[in-house]
Amino acid sequence: MSENISVLGLGLMGTALAKSLLAAGHQVTVWNRTPAKADPLVAEGAKQAATPAAAVAASELVIACLLDSRSVTATLEGAELRGRVIANLTTSRPVEAREIAALVTERGGDHLAGGIMAIPQMIATPGALILYSGSKAAYDRYEQALSAMARPQYTGADPAMAPLLDLAMLTGMYGQMAGFLEAAALVRSAGYPLRDFTSGLLVPWLNAMAAQQPAWAEKMESGDHGTDVSNLEINRSGVANLVRAFHEQGVRPDLLLPMQEILERRVARGLAHEGLSGLVEELVSD
Amino acid sequence: MSENISVLGLGLMGTALAKSLLAAGHQVTVWNRTPAKADPLVAEGAKQAATPAAAVAASELVIACLLDSRSVTATLEGAELRGRVIANLTTSRPVEAREIAALVTERGGDHLAGGIMAIPQMIATPGALILYSGSKAAYDRYEQALSAMARPQYTGADPAMAPLLDLAMLTGMYGQMAGFLEAAALVRSAGYPLRDFTSGLLVPWLNAMAAQQPAWAEKMESGDHGTDVSNLEINRSGVANLVRAFHEQGVRPDLLLPMQEILERRVARGLAHEGLSGLVEELVSD
Repeated sequence: MSENISVLGLGLMGTALAKSLLAAGHQVTVWNRTPAKADPLVAEGAKQAATPAAAVAASELVIACLLDSRSVTATLEGAELRGRVIANLTTSRPVEAREIAALVTERGGDHLAGGIMAIPQMIATPGALILYSGSKAAYDRYEQALSAMARPQYTGADPAMAPLLDLAMLTGMYGQMAGFLEAAALVRSAGYPLRDFTSGLLVPWLNAMAAQQPAWAEKMESGDHGTDVSNLEINRSGVANLVRAFHEQGVRPDLLLPMQEILERRVARGLAHEGLSGLVEELVSD
Repeated sequence: MSENISVLGLGLMGTALAKSLLAAGHQVTVWNRTPAKADPLVAEGAKQAATPAAAVAASELVIACLLDSRSVTATLEGAELRGRVIANLTTSRPVEAREIAALVTERGGDHLAGGIMAIPQMIATPGALILYSGSKAAYDRYEQALSAMARPQYTGADPAMAPLLDLAMLTGMYGQMAGFLEAAALVRSAGYPLRDFTSGLLVPWLNAMAAQQPAWAEKMESGDHGTDVSNLEINRSGVANLVRAFHEQGVRPDLLLPMQEILERRVARGLAHEGLSGLVEELVSD
């Protein structure tokens, strides 16, 4: 079913989103602060709005993909939001997503917050995912249209939820990246071919280890951090040994050091017999 | 082909190794400092040696799986190593592996260093891998026998190589674990079901991201850290935003902080336009 959809913000991501909606046959209206960025989309059939207010007036579903939350607030200023669904896919912190949601609903609109788990090149390909939270009614109404951009997944009524899960996934990625960087530096120090190490050894190993995470999550949910594999004392001494080996190889173990500190802190609490899942308890602020 | 193989050290791992060799039909002689630990293996057909020297005398292939490198040196003291292959699977740092290798070869033996990429429960299952380095002749002679314990992979003549690659894989695992712990703490702070997040969102995402690592390894090998996806400035501001969100959620971002520091250091060098692969250069000691 063809829908009227407006897209505010034509950076790399906004452009990719608008393109995918056009390709799926929707009536797309676009707006961007620098109007020339709309040209290629207009050539593909998009209508260009002169102001954000005009873009919001053109479609019931409005997708915002702007620089940051402040740009969203500024861009929506003066637009009539009554009867509109604002799907805010701008990268936001959870608190910001709540603020935008409140602003939209106060002005009579309906609101979805989104977290895009993809780079622009991945939009409209099978690997792309967009998390949504906020109005379930709005999500159900537009689920099919949204699926033109990426597989959509609804994560709850709290508008902060999709941005928070987005950040949590990025967090997991940065940790994995940090481990890869340190591993690569160590392998380079020994002159072993890095591509062979990465494809042949590291990636299959990381995939096998990631497959253990749901079991760790279960331990975290139950609060029972017992283990019959490697306890915190074994891990503490293993990481200390690792750090020593890094120094001996002339490689800085900077990205590993807080893992060593947290293991020592937890063991010092008398919990040496527990497993790694218990470390999550050390990350709650006092 | 049935071989005579001795196993020194019957902790959880040594016991699993000896068991897998017995199951494959080899003539296994075992020694352990506390003799009673040999009882279950003797019941399965192993011979028990009264001293390490007697165990070494019993078999041409000797597998050492002891507490640490010092225990290996102490255990081999006084044993006749001429004509023996010592496969040292004790967790070792690269420098220690070189020391043990030198000691064995000086005394007329042949040497392999090993890195076990498995927990004891995984020994003799398809997922288990043992990396070897050192004497290629010894590896070729015993490759088939060694494969009873886990899939063997030879990584080079330098005895330090297998222990170093083992440590590099553990490093990758600790990074991934650190990211998982922080992600889990964030998700818990929002009350989203942690198991759903882990199985449904995080693990597929991490697998997709790990699949990018060979491309990063290629950039590291070429030294060309250019990117057309997300440059260091985008990542720097993304991680700063993440850290802020952690504080707002009452979660400590401790394990992420050195990633933030290294991004800031690299951007401060005027390399904001490069990609994440360039961060590996920051890990070389001055």
